Amino acid sequence: MLAIYHFGPVANSMTPLLGLLEKGLRFEDRYLNSRLWEHHDPAFQKISPEGMVPVLVHDDRVITESTVINEYLDETFPEPPLKPADPYGRARMRIWTKYVDEYFCPALTVLGAQNAKGFASQMTAEEKAAVLARMPNAEVRRKWETVTDQGYSEAELAAARAKLANVARKMEQRLGEGTWMAGDTYSLADIKNYSMAPGLERMLPELVSEQAAPRVFDWLRRMDERPAVKAAKALARPRPQAA
Amino acid sequence: MLAIYHFGPVANSMTPLLGLLEKGLRFEDRYLNSRLWEHHDPAFQKISPEGMVPVLVHDDRVITESTVINEYLDETFPEPPLKPADPYGRARMRIWTKYVDEYFCPALTVLGAQNAKGFASQMTAEEKAAVLARMPNAEVRRKWETVTDQGYSEAELAAARAKLANVARKMEQRLGEGTWMAGDTYSLADIKNYSMAPGLERMLPELVSEQAAPRVFDWLRRMDERPAVKAAKALARPRPQAA
Repeated sequence: MLAIYHFGPVANSMTPLLGLLEKGLRFEDRYLNSRLWEHHDPAFQKISPEGMVPVLVHDDRVITESTVINEYLDETFPEPPLKPADPYGRARMRIWTKYVDEYFCPALTVLGAQNAKGFASQMTAEEKAAVLARMPNAEVRRKWETVTDQGYSEAELAAARAKLANVARKMEQRLGEGTWMAGDTYSLADIKNYSMAPGLERMLPELVSEQAAPRVFDWLRRMDERPAVKAAKALARPRPQAA
Repeated sequence: MLAIYHFGPVANSMTPLLGLLEKGLRFEDRYLNSRLWEHHDPAFQKISPEGMVPVLVHDDRVITESTVINEYLDETFPEPPLKPADPYGRARMRIWTKYVDEYFCPALTVLGAQNAKGFASQMTAEEKAAVLARMPNAEVRRKWETVTDQGYSEAELAAARAKLANVARKMEQRLGEGTWMAGDTYSLADIKNYSMAPGLERMLPELVSEQAAPRVFDWLRRMDERPAVKAAKALARPRPQAA
């Protein structure tokens, strides 16, 4: 039995959906509505004590961390392989997924926090207090509180934009070295990168346009056409609303 | 030919030294004196353009990122294996190395920055300007400038200490589930964790004492006794001094 708890085909939740779909695996689709705080529900906390999403359940095993989930899927279900065949190619793949996790995703999250602020501004003080009281992880709680109260400063937003310009530049350079992110083999590096790159294109289109980064633009369109990507997007739910 | 560029047997530089030594591999020991800024030397930048350390050179291949270097070493030189034999054990190993890279190491770095501040305070304004001018990565430059000028605020230091208390608690919990960090097999998770844990014990001994975290304390002593750990420590140079 394979089951995936996820927020829909975006960001870190996109990663294991694509892993499962590229492998052609059957799985239970356990969508969580983040706007209804379903990931802070006590029932879900039995599976993911700190409310982390996505989570893979494989028989009686629970695996967190989207990047690790995909490595686990690739090792457990080898066909088709989603890693380059040689150790050096795999190292290049891993360096890129690490870069997305440690640099690309955190910078994108800073810009994305504007949405959280807009969403939170529609809540009453009582609703907000109730949400905060249920958050299982103290650091996440403090961060959400800060982001939705004050938001990020102009300096923080500018630093995030500068980082994302570096990301776009590095992606363009990488794709000059091979067809895919880790060389000539489609791999988990493409999946991880595609989990974030459409968000970058949407929020800062000047960085990934056909003119500014033609190889990235072409790679995005090749990704868009993959059957697994289309199948993942078909798992999207109507835009979730607070109750 | 294997060569490792490193800052000595501490923090991220400890990781690949232990990987190489646990495998019993012969390698060229290319120590860089960080206090003499040898990693910002133009000759080294041909290998590592942004001055990142450690770096592994294997024949004509250059591999960065200590966590990835060790995965590469384990795949290229399989004996003795440094990963659990089953995919779930490997996922647990990878979740821990990711946690060290994304959470443990950054928090420890905040406390360690006090050293950088003390060191920088002994430099003249001219020396400091010359060092900054040579730094190849603009973000590293800005960060070093901020840290050595103002240092971290009390709130930032307190947040880092709170994170490190979480780390010590999680380590103690993990070591209640098996002899080693990823279960009953010594693995790259122990190596990565040991690259940081002695720093934690030194800076916040109240968190990892025999009383506060007996399993972590015992694990540290078992690690200290490993021949590879002793061999890595023997590669330490006398405390580097600025010219």
